[in-house]
Amino acid sequence: MKEITFGIDIGGTNTKFGIADRVGHVLYSGKISTTKFVKFEDLLDEVSALLREGLSNLGTAYSLVGIGVGSANGNYYSASIENAPNLKWKGTIPVGKMLAKSFGVPVLVTNDANAAAVGEMIFGAAKGMKDFIVITLGTGLGSGFVCNGQVVNGKHGIAGELGHTFVNPVGRNCNCGKRGCLETYVSATGIKRTVYKLLADHLEPSELRGVSFENLSTKMITEAALRGDVVATEAYKYTGRILGMKLSDTVVHTDPEAIFLLGGLSLAGELIFKPTIEHMEANLMPIFRNKVKVLPSGLQNQSAPILGASSLIWNYLEEKGKIPA
Amino acid sequence: MKEITFGIDIGGTNTKFGIADRVGHVLYSGKISTTKFVKFEDLLDEVSALLREGLSNLGTAYSLVGIGVGSANGNYYSASIENAPNLKWKGTIPVGKMLAKSFGVPVLVTNDANAAAVGEMIFGAAKGMKDFIVITLGTGLGSGFVCNGQVVNGKHGIAGELGHTFVNPVGRNCNCGKRGCLETYVSATGIKRTVYKLLADHLEPSELRGVSFENLSTKMITEAALRGDVVATEAYKYTGRILGMKLSDTVVHTDPEAIFLLGGLSLAGELIFKPTIEHMEANLMPIFRNKVKVLPSGLQNQSAPILGASSLIWNYLEEKGKIPA
Repeated sequence: MKEITFGIDIGGTNTKFGIADRVGHVLYSGKISTTKFVKFEDLLDEVSALLREGLSNLGTAYSLVGIGVGSANGNYYSASIENAPNLKWKGTIPVGKMLAKSFGVPVLVTNDANAAAVGEMIFGAAKGMKDFIVITLGTGLGSGFVCNGQVVNGKHGIAGELGHTFVNPVGRNCNCGKRGCLETYVSATGIKRTVYKLLADHLEPSELRGVSFENLSTKMITEAALRGDVVATEAYKYTGRILGMKLSDTVVHTDPEAIFLLGGLSLAGELIFKPTIEHMEANLMPIFRNKVKVLPSGLQNQSAPILGASSLIWNYLEEKGKIPA
Repeated sequence: MKEITFGIDIGGTNTKFGIADRVGHVLYSGKISTTKFVKFEDLLDEVSALLREGLSNLGTAYSLVGIGVGSANGNYYSASIENAPNLKWKGTIPVGKMLAKSFGVPVLVTNDANAAAVGEMIFGAAKGMKDFIVITLGTGLGSGFVCNGQVVNGKHGIAGELGHTFVNPVGRNCNCGKRGCLETYVSATGIKRTVYKLLADHLEPSELRGVSFENLSTKMITEAALRGDVVATEAYKYTGRILGMKLSDTVVHTDPEAIFLLGGLSLAGELIFKPTIEHMEANLMPIFRNKVKVLPSGLQNQSAPILGASSLIWNYLEEKGKIPA
């Protein structure tokens, strides 16, 4: 029997799920809308039914050893989703317990950025690294820290909220209730806000003047910048400068070997990497300079969230040999 | 035979050393000036001779199992002191190798704040904690991070330089070559600079107007504040506000159970703890509020540096069973 795991990534918009083996082959995968379900149980029932069907279609040569779940506000210790601002279900959702009951295998739950960090270590560009950070640049900014080869969950299971460090205490309003948090500047939403700020403050012509805030996407900003649009180019410079400055603070906390950028904004390549690295280096304490790599994630594809969630199980088996049921 | 360790703390001004047992009893201790030696070898020879004499005076019932060294810019991986700005000896000093050759026992070296963190875990107020931070408030600001029960050394052995995160990129000049680093505001030197800034900007009478910068000490500022001196009181509020704001950023990185403050400035009690906690909480992302304790170190005495250095050995023996020679 070949051992396989289920990986489930519960996002605010979509839920992705799949079946993966130890070397990172995704044998089956699917995606459904998270928002179309009124009850969380119904979402989980549909995902479970599809995974059962996918597994049964693979034949009898496969054995399910565990399920990994990545979710916004997933808590490793309680195996629950806790007060997720980006999901419609409030309070504590014991997703780990629900899946364990349904499938009779161990379940590990964590937040999506920690799952991405484990995925990077097991399947991606951080193989063999013991100290690194993954930054997910999506709707918000998430982060997963690995120190001494282990994910940092923290005392309360909520470590790695780099998106809510401050850039400007009287700056932009943040979903978390504070002002001026990093993710209000550095994220898909953040760069849109920056474009609108630049359009408001300056007079330069820009192809983005014809686009509404709702319709504006990271991809449009990237393409405009590549065509030389002044506002789009400036927006990337500003975003990279702020990310670089804040990363210089983060680096002196845990002294990582590398920082991996993952998600929409990171696909802009040099537009985001160049100013980020430049301003990180310029703001670093001298003994840290030219030591820390800022790199694109090795899992820049559709399967990344499934592999990230799935890797929780493989990582645990490697570290401890056996997962508590 | 009762097992004992040597603990050596090499500071910019003084070098402290002693003999400690597994439960934190200091059986012998001494202190000499670091600065009076021209050659580092001569400092180490004198410390070694005094430790040998101390051990021999204890009688024959004791067995030396290892030596722990805490030093500014001590690097755990290379067991060396590397480019310490506060020591007169430049370049790399292989202090671990030198002591191992001299005593024939394993030697572990780390920076003074990491040694303090291990000391706090083994002998102090962090017993049983797996995720915490120690902040040393001396001439500068040092920090030691423990995550998942292990000290975070980082990829290059230089993690925990919280003193060089930025408060104001165009702020006060720092020894590291940058401007506006946290330790230029929050440290014994930082609060002196703040007092002088306040004396320059304001007209209020203050007993500190009669003291030169060189003569001004943390103790004088504390005593003046306790007597109601407006400038000294304001200096503590300002220092705590900046420390609290920066700690709110640090907390969301590693989600610690507690942050321990150690060293001169921390002895001011409520004067520093009250504004620090108030501004940390006010700036924290809501899910972190009222979760993280800010506490005085459990090792607030003369033996702290010796116990910190000594604990490196006990901690290693506990984790791994045996120290590589």
